[in-house]
Amino acid sequence: MSKTFSITILGSNSALPTSERYPTAQMLNVSERFFLIDCGEGTQIQLRKNKIKFTKIDHIFISHLHGDHCFGLIGLISTLGLMGRKTNLYLHAHPELEKVFQPQLDYFCKDLPYKVVFEPFDTKQKQVIYSDKHLEVETIPLIHRIPTVGFLFREKPEERKIRKEFVFVHKPSIKEILSIKKGEDFLNADGRLMANREITLDPPPIRSYAFCTDTKYTEKIIDQIKGVDVLYHESTFTKDKEKLAKKTYHATAEQAAKIAIKAGVGMLLIGHFSSRYKSLKPFLDEAQMVFPDAQLAKEGDVVSIL
Amino acid sequence: MSKTFSITILGSNSALPTSERYPTAQMLNVSERFFLIDCGEGTQIQLRKNKIKFTKIDHIFISHLHGDHCFGLIGLISTLGLMGRKTNLYLHAHPELEKVFQPQLDYFCKDLPYKVVFEPFDTKQKQVIYSDKHLEVETIPLIHRIPTVGFLFREKPEERKIRKEFVFVHKPSIKEILSIKKGEDFLNADGRLMANREITLDPPPIRSYAFCTDTKYTEKIIDQIKGVDVLYHESTFTKDKEKLAKKTYHATAEQAAKIAIKAGVGMLLIGHFSSRYKSLKPFLDEAQMVFPDAQLAKEGDVVSIL
Repeated sequence: MSKTFSITILGSNSALPTSERYPTAQMLNVSERFFLIDCGEGTQIQLRKNKIKFTKIDHIFISHLHGDHCFGLIGLISTLGLMGRKTNLYLHAHPELEKVFQPQLDYFCKDLPYKVVFEPFDTKQKQVIYSDKHLEVETIPLIHRIPTVGFLFREKPEERKIRKEFVFVHKPSIKEILSIKKGEDFLNADGRLMANREITLDPPPIRSYAFCTDTKYTEKIIDQIKGVDVLYHESTFTKDKEKLAKKTYHATAEQAAKIAIKAGVGMLLIGHFSSRYKSLKPFLDEAQMVFPDAQLAKEGDVVSIL
Repeated sequence: MSKTFSITILGSNSALPTSERYPTAQMLNVSERFFLIDCGEGTQIQLRKNKIKFTKIDHIFISHLHGDHCFGLIGLISTLGLMGRKTNLYLHAHPELEKVFQPQLDYFCKDLPYKVVFEPFDTKQKQVIYSDKHLEVETIPLIHRIPTVGFLFREKPEERKIRKEFVFVHKPSIKEILSIKKGEDFLNADGRLMANREITLDPPPIRSYAFCTDTKYTEKIIDQIKGVDVLYHESTFTKDKEKLAKKTYHATAEQAAKIAIKAGVGMLLIGHFSSRYKSLKPFLDEAQMVFPDAQLAKEGDVVSIL
């Protein structure tokens, strides 16, 4: 069974929450390590509703400093303190988050038993802002009314897996095992060179997720997100409101689907719906006309990449 | 039919919200004028769930500056702006609210189409902080870890109502009507003095609501809240945790009930439950042992005073 790589939608509405739809927040679970993406008001309540152990969150990525993407931060941080968290919490965001947020921390979270570490990034160019053994996170510069980025989450390639029967028969040394895993061939006891392909299995495919909100329609992101397994792209409006979308630096469902098809992604998730829409079906219909593998991002939905 | 005087519980949990229980917020409806009391995270979502038109809120009263009583303010204020509010919104709170909150407004709500007016009050002594033709609001100094007040909402006495048959028979002048309404007697055409009691009806009784959270047990509030129709008193813990309650400047359900009985209130609502309790029944049992007219404050409950 492959390791988990799943996205849980905690909130997918735009600025005005409704009784059922929350502002933006998502949880990415990569092998039981949790990465929170945006943190609108009520995120901690949604985490509880979705039974996500939020003590496991070490990194929070904030796309931009509009309230519907970050008003839930102070409550979540405060709660983590009350729960006795000890380990650092890293906030990856535009440098101004610290400026506007530190005074709140100083006032409301004086006795926090853990440290909030601001990890500012430049929003103008793509850059790797997080990297561990298994995962890399890269910013995706977007075009919105204020500096905004998306995030590209991509697994790192794993080493090749050596076939068990090969190990049993040829008993390679530790040094040889390490080099075979990296892709090298093997000279066996009979002096025959065994091709790496013959004695190893492919590692699991690399999985990737691109989160792009808020943004107007821009083809500049296409190269960077080419071929991702899942693309989340905002679609605040339907195409009859394309002018309004352009004016407010948002996108339509059709535009999101165009990006998906041009980037050849595996699946499209659309969200950040304007609360003027009572039904979300028009968004889905519009996106699927262009890109059939489109889905609505709805609170509580879990999308797993296998 | 008497005019509305009702309390809607939007959140009644203490600092840590659960999936069903929100931090503190209540809405008082006095003749379709809405007064918001405290504003924990998610208040705007709870307002929508309870179908309360929050464009009707003009005054918000904040008991103290712990996050679970005010983290929902910025989101609500921002939303009211997006909805196009034009009229002033008044925030009644400790003077430090402005200090900690204005920078957030400056950053996140630059283009607010209405004005947020801070109405600071002294938390050390009781004082009238709001008054209109029908209602008066007075602070109730409480004892908590930081400066905290409760609020006493009390209708103003209405004028006496003149009996219709008296008006029909005796045809008093406008001047006479005004003085009769104020309680004066009437000298009729035959020279007989008619007692005010004989020619008028009592006005509806004055209704009152006292909101007391967060606080440790203190009998100092009793005189001020004597005889209110409904008392909301915090009960963060059950009595087996009385020491912890004292240490953290909170109260138990039993203590809340003791205050209720000593103040001779009509009904007791208890809330601000610690999230360590899975069931709230022990709170209710404990309070009702002392004061039978006790109820739990639960999200969505509406208590009407007739």
